[in-house]
Amino acid sequence: MPLGTNYEQQDCPLARALEILGERWTILVLRDCFYGVRRFTHLLEHLDVSRAVLTDRLAGLVEAGVLERRMEDGHPAYVLTDAGVATWPSLYALLRWGDMFGGGQRSRREFVHESCSTRIDDQGACPQCGVMPGPGDLVVQPRNPKDVDSSRTDPVSLRLREPQRLLTPLLP
Amino acid sequence: MPLGTNYEQQDCPLARALEILGERWTILVLRDCFYGVRRFTHLLEHLDVSRAVLTDRLAGLVEAGVLERRMEDGHPAYVLTDAGVATWPSLYALLRWGDMFGGGQRSRREFVHESCSTRIDDQGACPQCGVMPGPGDLVVQPRNPKDVDSSRTDPVSLRLREPQRLLTPLLP
Repeated sequence: MPLGTNYEQQDCPLARALEILGERWTILVLRDCFYGVRRFTHLLEHLDVSRAVLTDRLAGLVEAGVLERRMEDGHPAYVLTDAGVATWPSLYALLRWGDMFGGGQRSRREFVHESCSTRIDDQGACPQCGVMPGPGDLVVQPRNPKDVDSSRTDPVSLRLREPQRLLTPLLP
Repeated sequence: MPLGTNYEQQDCPLARALEILGERWTILVLRDCFYGVRRFTHLLEHLDVSRAVLTDRLAGLVEAGVLERRMEDGHPAYVLTDAGVATWPSLYALLRWGDMFGGGQRSRREFVHESCSTRIDDQGACPQCGVMPGPGDLVVQPRNPKDVDSSRTDPVSLRLREPQRLLTPLLP
């Protein structure tokens, strides 16, 4: 039995999820897709990842049915499928954990329920409305508009200095 | 700026979480810790991972404060810290995603709220009690006691054929 190369023997849905989502950088690619980033160049500039790694991750996500690759204005665009959108609870849970236990400063961004502008709680629920908003009903925004990361000037970082609805194209 | 080797430039709690939890096998090690596996040998037999990788992952998790290494009956035991227990929502969300979108057969195991024996829902809530049980209040059990994976005969797999409360030592 091969050891340490894959999770095949694990008979576990967690192992199957990690086969698709567990490669280095994959979840950060998905994070940017939730932010509405759709083009290879924009992902590349925002992710500090090599062109080869990004190409590999995008191809894997398309093959797994998590992203759809389609042509928009003559360029390939990568868009979350239903399976991709369904990764939101995993991403949000990891993000909250990183904020509480990952060390470093607190997140500069927060997620609010679009319809009531209330920040969602640690479980992803809106305490104002008592619902669990899907990502398409959330807005990502700076926690403190005066505390943005001015060292980053790529187009995605610049757009994220203003509130943005998730799953809505971030850039033309 | 180095590319593709770490997430340092990402200024994002999700990236910080992945620095600690995102290495291959790490989340499956934590899964087994939730099941109550505490010894190196038992992890090794259950995880189909090489000794070197397991050693590396355990050391990283101890260093990050996710696991505590303590001596029990003359053997080192690895136990989830508060930060480790707090990874449960991430693991459960990934597990649910894998069950829905990971392909392959459905999970053979289910998680029930110990106090009412009701299976928790996709968000991790108990529909009977209307609460979100912590992992210490959950029992993992075969979904169908007649459908266990008889190909696996390591001690952890054998114990998991019976209901087991999470975070409770699984083996002597």
